[in-house]
Amino acid sequence: MKIPWSGRAHSFEKKEINFLTNIIKNADPLTQGKYLKLFEKKFGNFIKKSNVFAVSSAAAALEIISLLLGIKKNDEIIIPAHTYCASAIPFARNGAKIVWSDINFKTRTVDLGDIKKKITSKTKAIVIVHLYGYAVDFRNIINFCKKKNIKIIEDCAQAIGAEVGGKKVGSIGDFSCFSFHAQKNMTTLGEGGIIYVKEKKLARKVPGLRHNGHCNYRFKRKNYWVPAMGNLDLDLKGVWPYKFTISEIQCGAGIVMLKRLNALNKKRIKRAKKFIKEMSNFDELQFVNPTEKNRHVYHLLSAYYQPSKYINKNDLIEILFEKYSIKCAVQYYPLYKYALFKKMGQGSKKLLNTEKFYNNMISFPFHVWMSDKEFNYMIRSVKKSLLSLQKLRNK
Amino acid sequence: MKIPWSGRAHSFEKKEINFLTNIIKNADPLTQGKYLKLFEKKFGNFIKKSNVFAVSSAAAALEIISLLLGIKKNDEIIIPAHTYCASAIPFARNGAKIVWSDINFKTRTVDLGDIKKKITSKTKAIVIVHLYGYAVDFRNIINFCKKKNIKIIEDCAQAIGAEVGGKKVGSIGDFSCFSFHAQKNMTTLGEGGIIYVKEKKLARKVPGLRHNGHCNYRFKRKNYWVPAMGNLDLDLKGVWPYKFTISEIQCGAGIVMLKRLNALNKKRIKRAKKFIKEMSNFDELQFVNPTEKNRHVYHLLSAYYQPSKYINKNDLIEILFEKYSIKCAVQYYPLYKYALFKKMGQGSKKLLNTEKFYNNMISFPFHVWMSDKEFNYMIRSVKKSLLSLQKLRNK
Repeated sequence: MKIPWSGRAHSFEKKEINFLTNIIKNADPLTQGKYLKLFEKKFGNFIKKSNVFAVSSAAAALEIISLLLGIKKNDEIIIPAHTYCASAIPFARNGAKIVWSDINFKTRTVDLGDIKKKITSKTKAIVIVHLYGYAVDFRNIINFCKKKNIKIIEDCAQAIGAEVGGKKVGSIGDFSCFSFHAQKNMTTLGEGGIIYVKEKKLARKVPGLRHNGHCNYRFKRKNYWVPAMGNLDLDLKGVWPYKFTISEIQCGAGIVMLKRLNALNKKRIKRAKKFIKEMSNFDELQFVNPTEKNRHVYHLLSAYYQPSKYINKNDLIEILFEKYSIKCAVQYYPLYKYALFKKMGQGSKKLLNTEKFYNNMISFPFHVWMSDKEFNYMIRSVKKSLLSLQKLRNK
Repeated sequence: MKIPWSGRAHSFEKKEINFLTNIIKNADPLTQGKYLKLFEKKFGNFIKKSNVFAVSSAAAALEIISLLLGIKKNDEIIIPAHTYCASAIPFARNGAKIVWSDINFKTRTVDLGDIKKKITSKTKAIVIVHLYGYAVDFRNIINFCKKKNIKIIEDCAQAIGAEVGGKKVGSIGDFSCFSFHAQKNMTTLGEGGIIYVKEKKLARKVPGLRHNGHCNYRFKRKNYWVPAMGNLDLDLKGVWPYKFTISEIQCGAGIVMLKRLNALNKKRIKRAKKFIKEMSNFDELQFVNPTEKNRHVYHLLSAYYQPSKYINKNDLIEILFEKYSIKCAVQYYPLYKYALFKKMGQGSKKLLNTEKFYNNMISFPFHVWMSDKEFNYMIRSVKKSLLSLQKLRNK
């Protein structure tokens, strides 16, 4: 048996494929039509919010958010260094100084205490990344941020459906983004995203920013082509719009997968809990395992590997790869260490938990279309590998 | 009968749909995989060039081109004002002063004489838009531009397959972009684009710019996860990368449609020629109708309407819309007149041909999936409308 790191999270069922085939055959238009509207409506219902817009990716959503923030020179945005790079790039591009925050070692997500320490008079916004699928509880800093006019951005790329305090992630902050990239808990055929904007006045600017500044005229036209077929304007000073549109078939995939998301997340949670339980006798592996319902939707199944004097996570990854053909991953290289960020002056001194966790973490393949047989094979293989490493350690 | 302005250019055939369904079912990964590679290879063969990269849209391609240009303050880029806004926005965003060029009244595309007049020591690049599907012959300014180190960018969004001097558009300049948006001669399911970069050294930077700076390490790694799963770097000073990736199913659509493009273009050309011939007795309508093979691939079927004292193109559009349910369009409102461009200091004084043509043009619905019956209905309806307008005029 062989367990790859899959480039797709889930399969599509027959009726879903029929729905998509119908769009390929009949949808007119093929982009920016009724499926876009319907997907946005359904997604709004899902997080119980309006002001929801579908875009080409979560990165595009964050780009639009960074434009809506109106970042000025010297503005600071606090972002965890332990996340995927797209959480940070748009803000840096638009002129923010990134202040890298550390993670809480227990949750492997943003440390609110560290964020508070890093807030200054220049702080424009903070990015809360619900990493791995874990819903960060940031409710106790909301009032503090509101008073200081610091905006809270939820990056829910990995956590669609996760909940905290009875609310879905992405519905709590001032802005949020979701990703439907191939490997996410649900995918809109490989690429796609959602942006949510709390403030109505700001939300109105999203369609134009997403689509080259297209907008309605403020007056009723006698003829549909006078003065022009459509208007181009943007109610944002000094900003040019983008082309971040998402096609009808992608929105169609969003519509059908949203129906099945709960079931997919349930399966992920059930499997993760099983895996964690099976590993409970191995102190080497430490998981995040909250008891609250839907607190963690396990986009990834990652663990901290407690290193001993001679054995570390590299040994486990190597055995699993070489002996059992199971391809694990190691996430996330501290962003400030990449050449990309260092060259642009967005480096940082070492963040302790960020580096400690990165250096000792292992992420097991966890695509939801993995068969039970494969999943059980993985459990057995990890156990056998850990036992053999224990023997080595005790020698 | 009713002829809308369709939001899709063409249908997909059964075997094409089967090919796409197979991708939905089986492709792993669902983005940035083998279909991307194959589409890029096939497209490279099509324009007889390498250095071809598929991206999320033509606008994304132009964004990358504008980053590769290394635009500096006061740099000027000459762009026709008679085109879709995406031809200009990326260059303006990245700091260029847009110098709007006029069109040649005969071809309704860029006027090389006007461009030459507008070249200054600050000119960084010129954008040649092969608008409506017409291949602009810009060969006699290539050497001039080369000497002055002015880059030529071909915007082939509307002209895929058009040829001049035996070469396909998009293979002649320093950079080019193609669009596979829903209404284009071929579409990758609603959204999609291609970027071509002539210079190898610059072309190498495209994959990183397209995908968050992802790149290989310059050394061979002992373990696939050390120092990190992947590298992030960009060999371009002061530039952040984007997320402009295109999914596997979109690339799959590109692969199958590229096979059928010639046939689709042939059908467009045949119908356009027929329409033009049928209208030859009406002096009011003046078309671009070159005799060279594939010089014009008629993405749009547009005409100049010669106004008389009391009758103008508005009357024709209105009759066709009200009486025959045929929805024509009017393209392209001079870009410098939109609030979007004016507010950003990219206005212009009046360009004569740009305004004269815009004020008197009509664009007939021309999606290629229109049936022959509908197409013939349109011909009859236009003729009847013109006859009735002639009667009014002669009263």
